Amino acid sequence: MLGKFNIRTDLALEAKESFEEDHVEIRGVKITETEDEEREIRTTRVVIETENGAKAMGKPVGTYVTMEAPHMSVSDEGYHREVSEALAGHLRELLGDREQSVLVVGLGNREVTPDALGPYVAGHVDITRHMIREYGKAFLDRERTCPVSALIPGVMAQTGMETLEIIRGVVEETKPDVVIAVDALAARSTRRLNRTIQITDTGINPGSGVGNHRDGITKETLGVPVIAIGVPTVVDAATIVNDTMESLVDTMDRDAHIKNLGGALGTLSKSEKQQMIRELISPHLNTMFVTPKDIDETIHRISYTVSEGINLALSLS
Amino acid sequence: MLGKFNIRTDLALEAKESFEEDHVEIRGVKITETEDEEREIRTTRVVIETENGAKAMGKPVGTYVTMEAPHMSVSDEGYHREVSEALAGHLRELLGDREQSVLVVGLGNREVTPDALGPYVAGHVDITRHMIREYGKAFLDRERTCPVSALIPGVMAQTGMETLEIIRGVVEETKPDVVIAVDALAARSTRRLNRTIQITDTGINPGSGVGNHRDGITKETLGVPVIAIGVPTVVDAATIVNDTMESLVDTMDRDAHIKNLGGALGTLSKSEKQQMIRELISPHLNTMFVTPKDIDETIHRISYTVSEGINLALSLS
Amino acid sequence: MLGKFNIRTDLALEAKESFEEDHVEIRGVKITETEDEEREIRTTRVVIETENGAKAMGKPVGTYVTMEAPHMSVSDEGYHREVSEALAGHLRELLGDREQSVLVVGLGNREVTPDALGPYVAGHVDITRHMIREYGKAFLDRERTCPVSALIPGVMAQTGMETLEIIRGVVEETKPDVVIAVDALAARSTRRLNRTIQITDTGINPGSGVGNHRDGITKETLGVPVIAIGVPTVVDAATIVNDTMESLVDTMDRDAHIKNLGGALGTLSKSEKQQMIRELISPHLNTMFVTPKDIDETIHRISYTVSEGINLALSLS
Amino acid sequence: MLGKFNIRTDLALEAKESFEEDHVEIRGVKITETEDEEREIRTTRVVIETENGAKAMGKPVGTYVTMEAPHMSVSDEGYHREVSEALAGHLRELLGDREQSVLVVGLGNREVTPDALGPYVAGHVDITRHMIREYGKAFLDRERTCPVSALIPGVMAQTGMETLEIIRGVVEETKPDVVIAVDALAARSTRRLNRTIQITDTGINPGSGVGNHRDGITKETLGVPVIAIGVPTVVDAATIVNDTMESLVDTMDRDAHIKNLGGALGTLSKSEKQQMIRELISPHLNTMFVTPKDIDETIHRISYTVSEGINLALSLS
Repeated sequence: MLGKFNIRTDLALEAKESFEEDHVEIRGVKITETEDEEREIRTTRVVIETENGAKAMGKPVGTYVTMEAPHMSVSDEGYHREVSEALAGHLRELLGDREQSVLVVGLGNREVTPDALGPYVAGHVDITRHMIREYGKAFLDRERTCPVSALIPGVMAQTGMETLEIIRGVVEETKPDVVIAVDALAARSTRRLNRTIQITDTGINPGSGVGNHRDGITKETLGVPVIAIGVPTVVDAATIVNDTMESLVDTMDRDAHIKNLGGALGTLSKSEKQQMIRELISPHLNTMFVTPKDIDETIHRISYTVSEGINLALSLS
Repeated sequence: MLGKFNIRTDLALEAKESFEEDHVEIRGVKITETEDEEREIRTTRVVIETENGAKAMGKPVGTYVTMEAPHMSVSDEGYHREVSEALAGHLRELLGDREQSVLVVGLGNREVTPDALGPYVAGHVDITRHMIREYGKAFLDRERTCPVSALIPGVMAQTGMETLEIIRGVVEETKPDVVIAVDALAARSTRRLNRTIQITDTGINPGSGVGNHRDGITKETLGVPVIAIGVPTVVDAATIVNDTMESLVDTMDRDAHIKNLGGALGTLSKSEKQQMIRELISPHLNTMFVTPKDIDETIHRISYTVSEGINLALSLS
Repeated sequence: MLGKFNIRTDLALEAKESFEEDHVEIRGVKITETEDEEREIRTTRVVIETENGAKAMGKPVGTYVTMEAPHMSVSDEGYHREVSEALAGHLRELLGDREQSVLVVGLGNREVTPDALGPYVAGHVDITRHMIREYGKAFLDRERTCPVSALIPGVMAQTGMETLEIIRGVVEETKPDVVIAVDALAARSTRRLNRTIQITDTGINPGSGVGNHRDGITKETLGVPVIAIGVPTVVDAATIVNDTMESLVDTMDRDAHIKNLGGALGTLSKSEKQQMIRELISPHLNTMFVTPKDIDETIHRISYTVSEGINLALSLS
Repeated sequence: MLGKFNIRTDLALEAKESFEEDHVEIRGVKITETEDEEREIRTTRVVIETENGAKAMGKPVGTYVTMEAPHMSVSDEGYHREVSEALAGHLRELLGDREQSVLVVGLGNREVTPDALGPYVAGHVDITRHMIREYGKAFLDRERTCPVSALIPGVMAQTGMETLEIIRGVVEETKPDVVIAVDALAARSTRRLNRTIQITDTGINPGSGVGNHRDGITKETLGVPVIAIGVPTVVDAATIVNDTMESLVDTMDRDAHIKNLGGALGTLSKSEKQQMIRELISPHLNTMFVTPKDIDETIHRISYTVSEGINLALSLS
């Protein structure tokens, strides 16, 4: 089972699935699934309640909401407003019903298409903090007014600074009540790419994201709560190969005829087979990722769906 | 052996290699390899001389020069001028020693990073046709002066027209002596990505390129000779999986111990094994490609290397 | 009056205004103005009916519809759909009520912001020609189906070819029934910038557009009717200076007190004063233009308003 | 004389010139001019030594070096390395001869071409801080090693935060020894555009820059020395008009014949005439600027000249 966790996924949903494959139930983890058939959105809520559950899932204690909307990867004139509305609902739930100032942080590298989701989203968010400071809250004429600011910190190769350093400096100086961090994620399965949004109150954890953040961006490191919104936009190339080969091994295990074909290979344990597979995967693949052919256009489109969800959550006009 | 050719490659070099694996010599095909150790460029010249050779290689009769320069994918202040110079040499050889007017066509989709090589190159080429028409050849004060024009036709989803229709219209109107078409290619191996330049006098053939051209852009379709310059920038995701699995099968065949493990699997023919592999590959992979993580920056850089090669070939100042 | 026409304007509306200032009526020119108060659009229809009128206006015989929508330069979630709808109405009128194939040409330079309107619009148009050719008209399931294609020819400095050469080649090869050419224009007054759309059935005439087209793109040069859509995005810097100085001269002429101040200056004729002004304007200004500070964002936004107008005109779903 | 100072300039050189026009010498201000004929660079060094001089110049006490290189606005294969080298020399002088950590801040709005200089420069700077922290100074193998980091803070409309807040937060968190702030400036004269670099040790002062910074970015506000590098890229449209009209007024004053023409107008004082001019300038002009037609390309090019100057100053390999 270790082999599974060497393969990287940023989605709690996928961590969960790998347990289900093995028919294991995990203590300290509660899972609820709902299907909104009209909007075609399937929502999975994973609540990791205990440190034990956290250990088993390889993710910190907290709430992970995953919205799967297969049509999201397809063009739509309204940028999938129904998805934005559902996202806004989940954000409001995690934010609570208070008026609070919010700093939206767009993580990732604007120059690398599948990693540019965060910067694009932060660029579309309705910014109000400066206007509220200048003209007062009455100015916006809304029921609830969250002063909103936005930051695109860049990546370490561009700035020479840890992303965390930049965000922490800005948080300490401008004192938002909460941070919403948006990031492109790595998934395990190409079926998830650009169709899934994960919202969590655990922030961004080390090693996650397309660009592999070195430090966590969390309540512990920033001093204010961090809600993370992530969309899987790439699969590591090695994962794709591994997965197909595992299904070969699985087929050999299950199918009587092929099992027979497999002969002594069939007598190897799963992890022995995985070991063999890993040795065969070209090291070149580690610097490669798999991405849909229309990624440039898709990332732009999804960035509007996500930013509109944030805008809806933060303004009650 | 059919299985091999279902896997797509735009490189004559890779078509050749698949024969060598099978220790087959092909009649009507001449291959020469040279190594320039100082410049670290390895050049393979495949000349397909007969229709028989063309059939065997799956490529039209003509000359295919492939330059492999592993350092090309790495940043360099001079944009790898040594590669540009070698490219210029091959172009001059194919162009012949006459002064002729050249239309450089940048094929591909400017909005999809790994397919944007052609448009970027066409954007960097030194354009002289309009100045020569306005001020005469003396104006440029060079030994040889090829009037150079450039066209970025876009892709069918953007234009509603076949790329060939646009180019043919412009060729008929502006009457260049020769067309140089630049395109991003699909390779079979990630080791080739962004390190290889193929130059051929056979033009662009149907089904080639990242964007899969529907029609050929060749002397037959345009009425003037077409020299094609291609750089592999993607590998189809299915290819990666297939290749790794084939090496599993190969390992099983070769290694006595594993062969034994493979049991009856070992008794399947190669094409039977490949058939099995293909069935296991997710159909999702067909809309995916594998590309290096730094592709956006790399494509920009290589576009300068290629355009400089063209500029050097077309101007003798 | 000559002085006036040395100052460049691409808008028939502005040519007309300069006559009105001089209280001149022009034979062979019919002008109608309508105000749509709900949509806040003021429409001026200038029909130049005779060669005499054409001479007086400095524009060819034909229909020029100008929509002034002051709010167009301001951000709007729906990209000013009411303007798109009005534009679609005018286009349909000029196109006539037949099903015809249309080539949309985006003129101008994508790399120079105020000149990028045409390329942006052509990039947003719904392209259908290739789908209709592949799947037939039934495929689109609309009442009327105009096969739509689009071309972004670039500018001469980038291509080495006259824009006309490229368009003519593509028109001859793909045989559209009509061409719609979109271009950024120069206006005389900053009040018009990014708030005005001119639609005309006379095509693009030499010397017009931000980039100053050398050749006309008209029915005469292409062989098919050309409808031109233009939006003024710049004012030549010299025009701004000239205009303010003219209003100084005018004030001197009108205001009794200042007239007195002006002394013998007041005795100069208008054209003598203009001559004096022109001599004072720095030659540096000829390579400069005046543009609003938010031009980059504005051009993007207006390109959606215009492309949506074209899409509405060409599809009746 | 007040009139003059209502017209905005960010260049100490231009403030100085307006005194010279009036043949005034200013106490507390030392001016030296040098001409490097080989490199075609004219350098003016304005040192404001006293508060009295500061008041007269409308600029804080400090050193202002202005390099005028007319050829800088023209394309050059080496991106004007001779200008980069001269810039590096001035930077080293202001930085002093110590090894120190530097934060390069790219001020301005990446989305507005003439204001994008700062972001572009910050994007080209050689970043070393993270590598030195990871691998130590020996890693870079240079004589002097300044850890370099870079920040692109964005503008208030995009972030909702004062630029100063963001920079101060990052400075407090990452503790650089010195900040180098790069910004696009407004000039008074179109002759200066894209040909002039100003280097000063006084930082960025309120109201300066194309985007009009609200707060100063200075040693007082950040706690560390701030060296500012500025390039004028726009002239306010109102300035252009004002200047031409002033030269009309001047001509009237000087030229006996026209003076006579001007009559009583000639009897008005200079400031009365300027008042009259200001009233005639359209308020529309206040949201407009004047910029060269090739600004997009020029800004890109100059950003390389400036970043290379910074890179040379901070690395002694």
